[in-house]
Amino acid sequence: MIKVGVIGCGYWGPNLVRNFYKTPNCEVVGVSDLRPERLQYIQSLYPKVQATPDALELIRNPQIDAIVVVTPVATHYELARAALLEGKHVLVTKPMTRTTAEARQLIELAEQKGLVLMVDHTFIYSGPVRKIKELIDQGELGQIYYYDSVRVNLGLFQNDVNVLWDLAPHDFSILAYLVGKEPISVSAIGARPVNCKHYEHESVAYVSVRFDDGTLAHVHVSWLSPVKIRRTLIGGSRKMVVYDHLDPDNQIKVYDKGVEIRSIEEQYQALVQYRTGDMWAPKVDQTEALEVECRHFIDCCLGKAKPLTDGYAGLQVVELLEAAQRSMDRGGEVISLVRAASA
Amino acid sequence: MIKVGVIGCGYWGPNLVRNFYKTPNCEVVGVSDLRPERLQYIQSLYPKVQATPDALELIRNPQIDAIVVVTPVATHYELARAALLEGKHVLVTKPMTRTTAEARQLIELAEQKGLVLMVDHTFIYSGPVRKIKELIDQGELGQIYYYDSVRVNLGLFQNDVNVLWDLAPHDFSILAYLVGKEPISVSAIGARPVNCKHYEHESVAYVSVRFDDGTLAHVHVSWLSPVKIRRTLIGGSRKMVVYDHLDPDNQIKVYDKGVEIRSIEEQYQALVQYRTGDMWAPKVDQTEALEVECRHFIDCCLGKAKPLTDGYAGLQVVELLEAAQRSMDRGGEVISLVRAASA
Amino acid sequence: MIKVGVIGCGYWGPNLVRNFYKTPNCEVVGVSDLRPERLQYIQSLYPKVQATPDALELIRNPQIDAIVVVTPVATHYELARAALLEGKHVLVTKPMTRTTAEARQLIELAEQKGLVLMVDHTFIYSGPVRKIKELIDQGELGQIYYYDSVRVNLGLFQNDVNVLWDLAPHDFSILAYLVGKEPISVSAIGARPVNCKHYEHESVAYVSVRFDDGTLAHVHVSWLSPVKIRRTLIGGSRKMVVYDHLDPDNQIKVYDKGVEIRSIEEQYQALVQYRTGDMWAPKVDQTEALEVECRHFIDCCLGKAKPLTDGYAGLQVVELLEAAQRSMDRGGEVISLVRAASA
Amino acid sequence: MIKVGVIGCGYWGPNLVRNFYKTPNCEVVGVSDLRPERLQYIQSLYPKVQATPDALELIRNPQIDAIVVVTPVATHYELARAALLEGKHVLVTKPMTRTTAEARQLIELAEQKGLVLMVDHTFIYSGPVRKIKELIDQGELGQIYYYDSVRVNLGLFQNDVNVLWDLAPHDFSILAYLVGKEPISVSAIGARPVNCKHYEHESVAYVSVRFDDGTLAHVHVSWLSPVKIRRTLIGGSRKMVVYDHLDPDNQIKVYDKGVEIRSIEEQYQALVQYRTGDMWAPKVDQTEALEVECRHFIDCCLGKAKPLTDGYAGLQVVELLEAAQRSMDRGGEVISLVRAASA
Repeated sequence: MIKVGVIGCGYWGPNLVRNFYKTPNCEVVGVSDLRPERLQYIQSLYPKVQATPDALELIRNPQIDAIVVVTPVATHYELARAALLEGKHVLVTKPMTRTTAEARQLIELAEQKGLVLMVDHTFIYSGPVRKIKELIDQGELGQIYYYDSVRVNLGLFQNDVNVLWDLAPHDFSILAYLVGKEPISVSAIGARPVNCKHYEHESVAYVSVRFDDGTLAHVHVSWLSPVKIRRTLIGGSRKMVVYDHLDPDNQIKVYDKGVEIRSIEEQYQALVQYRTGDMWAPKVDQTEALEVECRHFIDCCLGKAKPLTDGYAGLQVVELLEAAQRSMDRGGEVISLVRAASA
Repeated sequence: MIKVGVIGCGYWGPNLVRNFYKTPNCEVVGVSDLRPERLQYIQSLYPKVQATPDALELIRNPQIDAIVVVTPVATHYELARAALLEGKHVLVTKPMTRTTAEARQLIELAEQKGLVLMVDHTFIYSGPVRKIKELIDQGELGQIYYYDSVRVNLGLFQNDVNVLWDLAPHDFSILAYLVGKEPISVSAIGARPVNCKHYEHESVAYVSVRFDDGTLAHVHVSWLSPVKIRRTLIGGSRKMVVYDHLDPDNQIKVYDKGVEIRSIEEQYQALVQYRTGDMWAPKVDQTEALEVECRHFIDCCLGKAKPLTDGYAGLQVVELLEAAQRSMDRGGEVISLVRAASA
Repeated sequence: MIKVGVIGCGYWGPNLVRNFYKTPNCEVVGVSDLRPERLQYIQSLYPKVQATPDALELIRNPQIDAIVVVTPVATHYELARAALLEGKHVLVTKPMTRTTAEARQLIELAEQKGLVLMVDHTFIYSGPVRKIKELIDQGELGQIYYYDSVRVNLGLFQNDVNVLWDLAPHDFSILAYLVGKEPISVSAIGARPVNCKHYEHESVAYVSVRFDDGTLAHVHVSWLSPVKIRRTLIGGSRKMVVYDHLDPDNQIKVYDKGVEIRSIEEQYQALVQYRTGDMWAPKVDQTEALEVECRHFIDCCLGKAKPLTDGYAGLQVVELLEAAQRSMDRGGEVISLVRAASA
Repeated sequence: MIKVGVIGCGYWGPNLVRNFYKTPNCEVVGVSDLRPERLQYIQSLYPKVQATPDALELIRNPQIDAIVVVTPVATHYELARAALLEGKHVLVTKPMTRTTAEARQLIELAEQKGLVLMVDHTFIYSGPVRKIKELIDQGELGQIYYYDSVRVNLGLFQNDVNVLWDLAPHDFSILAYLVGKEPISVSAIGARPVNCKHYEHESVAYVSVRFDDGTLAHVHVSWLSPVKIRRTLIGGSRKMVVYDHLDPDNQIKVYDKGVEIRSIEEQYQALVQYRTGDMWAPKVDQTEALEVECRHFIDCCLGKAKPLTDGYAGLQVVELLEAAQRSMDRGGEVISLVRAASA
């Protein structure tokens, strides 16, 4: 039995509480939040859960085995570090930290202490992403040529982060999980298209990520779209995938379409031609991603599994965010990635 | 009565012949193409039209008033120039020329000779684009914040141009027409995601265009998408538009959605909030764009109108293409636009 | 403060408990169900609510003011009657009763006792249906010509009712609410397309309802469709509506399309021509229908409102179901409706 | 070489001329129409084709081998009969004739004369319908349980026929082709929902067709829908098909969904349960159906093939139309089909 404390009961925290509540071998012991009304809300739903305004009270509670950090990103490092120092396993919401330096320190600390450090990259635990991973691993798509994601809607402008840090972690985590190659450079263009002196964060951003072998990934995130789009195109040498998270019937469509290259001897005109075939929409597991993730975290705490989205996965995402932000700040300059691992 | 000669009977040429054929005050006198089978095809449809393998024969034909150039871009400048020198009005298909230098020479020559020089930016004459222009001119959308276009499909890899020069002229011409501001910089990322030694052209490209006032435009073009998408999002301060060329019922949707900015005194939390209202899909004229364009060209030749898509419109598109190509060649470097006008 | 007891905690009951739980001036005192695991489930969510296997315990509980009946239809009459006899207000789920005779008795009893008798026709309280009603009442659609509803999916075959009694109550209640005319005849075709000796209920049904003035309504319900469709077309003399409950962005689309009749003098060829104009998707209130309904029921119990979906509304639906069932049983025979009111 | 004459150059006739024009072993010799402007139109496109206002001129022309009848249905019998009597093969547009009596006489005459009599049931030659037929023949769908078609749009009100005779022939011919069973009864409900004294034809109709083994087919046709829908659901014991003619990417979707029946011993609750699996959209041949049909007709005239849509197929459709019309005229009465064959 793993006893859990959840720090942060804003928009996302209650979803984690709800899912840990029904996870086997797990008990939600306490929650904390600075806002009394949020604590009251959680207690109206779960009367037995202790509620405190003081996060440290949870972190220091000897009954608690694992701390879940669901607070604004600026506080992730400090809270996760304190929890690890107290010997607690940690699950921290995305993005893991503000900087790669912070992320590396948390990884090191967790390794020293032999504790679980997991990042809440929720989509990695969702049915469609797991299915696409399966298809890629089986070689169904062939070699991955490109990855193109659009994640836009009319969204709440966040006070603490821009649209890049709010939405792109989803894409970067999925990208890293599915493509599994080393990115070599990042460029990004952002805009604050709304005339507001007092609001300085980008609300539209386009990020390009290049990989060693020529694979190109592109991510479009926006809080300023009149329609909600969650669509990823993945082009492979054998097949192509359209992943539309919002299509209830067919979240994944696999197209037996592609490009065929002919040797120059064969013919004169078209060196590259396309072929089209059937489309196939595999059945996708509809279990809530967070439910799968919470179970996995408890299994990790119990020593039964290694985190799929560990500190290194979190670090990768922060690296891409950092580089994209630097590029945006410099008007779109291409930023080379010199990975710590290779340094 | 304007007598027309059409040079080039490949994919697009026959569409121009068909439309000029039914345009009032116009007669298609002759066509030319290097391929006998294409000439034969045209003659099977229009037995009275003269067909010749020699473009110069048309250009020098004293009966002909106007020359339509529908050949590969590499030949546009030479053919258009020859036609202008022979005192013919010219309609040239997009992109106008390979370089801005060529475009400027054609503009100058046409002005010297007092001849019509028009570029076949077909979409400018389409119902949906004209309707959006109308909405913008009426102030319905307010100030334009961003322009985002996706133009992707599984396309024929062209032998003479990359995907940027093939597809982006459509977006650049629409962008220039609708937004009507001066672009200040361009950056572009391209990829040749397919391993083919003998095929060197980019088949995927992402282009960002910045304007003086902070407006951001972004264009995604690809020949490697399993699904065909032709969708443009235009965000304004008052309303937002989704233009989906492939939605037969609702090509244009106007969303009464947007962002509201509050003064910092008013409240603490959200400086920027969104509002959502009705959606409205105006009826769109379904006349074939090329039919409207052909009529307009004849009206221009007859001195009854000034070309909507004149040489300067063509030049603007070539400027953006040139800058985007340079950026792609330099791995995504941001290219400043120093416009000739301001030089 | 109205104290409520809920009988039946199967699929739908918990939704009523959840909504009454957050309704002002209301307290959920107790629930009953024959299945211990269902009671346990409710208590895990709402520890303070009393749970009993005995419905009569709730009905006789002097603390309780109103009884909500959410049981299989076969038990509605008996439970509602007992509750009314004990002086409780009653909300009964659809369809109100098995027979019009039962429905009439409940109406009479409630009137004698001066108690609220309301039927849970949930859709009447939904944003889209209320919006369509508003449009009709404002004359926006003109005269209603036809009503066509498709409500199909791959559904659980019910053990106690066929697809008609399961799904058509939704359509019949919406139809009665929106069209507001007297139906004069009903015909229905049903099928048990699956070869199963032991399963005797229809799983596909088509129902036609004729009205006095020539208006035609048609309802297609099915548990055997591979895709889920919830779409209603409403044709009016001025405008037409497409109501797609599953389209998250545009549940209601109002088409400025219609038919224009010309006098025979005007022209020879087409007496009737169509015109097409803009489409408009009004913003629709997304409040959960059941929340609106629960508040309305409490307001009715407090004497502040008259039930929108009262016993007579419930009776109308049962009349249509009875007639449609009779038609199905007779192979599609047209059944005239002689309304009790006119008898 | 088969020499063809086409009678009727209204909306559909030119499509037949265009397709016969490019059919191998075929020459379009002449066309006829009562309207000079229609003849002029055809001659502007095909200058070599003879044009005459007199259909009999074509029928009696000894050079012509085959007559294509594309006129209003009221004239089909007379024209086809005259052509057969003159020894010409005949292709007649749908519906074959006004009555089954007429259809039977044409069949008999063609058999006596040893001539080809084919009906233009275009959809039978379309890629999607041929693909569904293939799936059914391969046993992919299992036993067919139901067939449900919706064919609605805002349509031109025809002067000579109602919506049943205009649109339902498509569905009846596809139904007969795919399901291949003997229908035993038909019922239909129609409406003239528009108040127009001078227009007496139904513009909305619902038709149910029952088959011997319990299979149920239902067809909804309308000229009064604000949206165009062309969608057929086919439920089989193994798989289900959605055929949406207007979905350019996926005209056919095959759902591995269905219903499983359990023996009563196995369990108590659900005798019938559903299962859901993958969806698959096979590639569909996009050749124009009419092109395939025209080639097939010429092959039949040359003795190389037997008509897929012969007189008997035409008769079947007229039988269903006749019965449905009778049912509509009697307010929805169920009409038993006593087939001539079994009489």
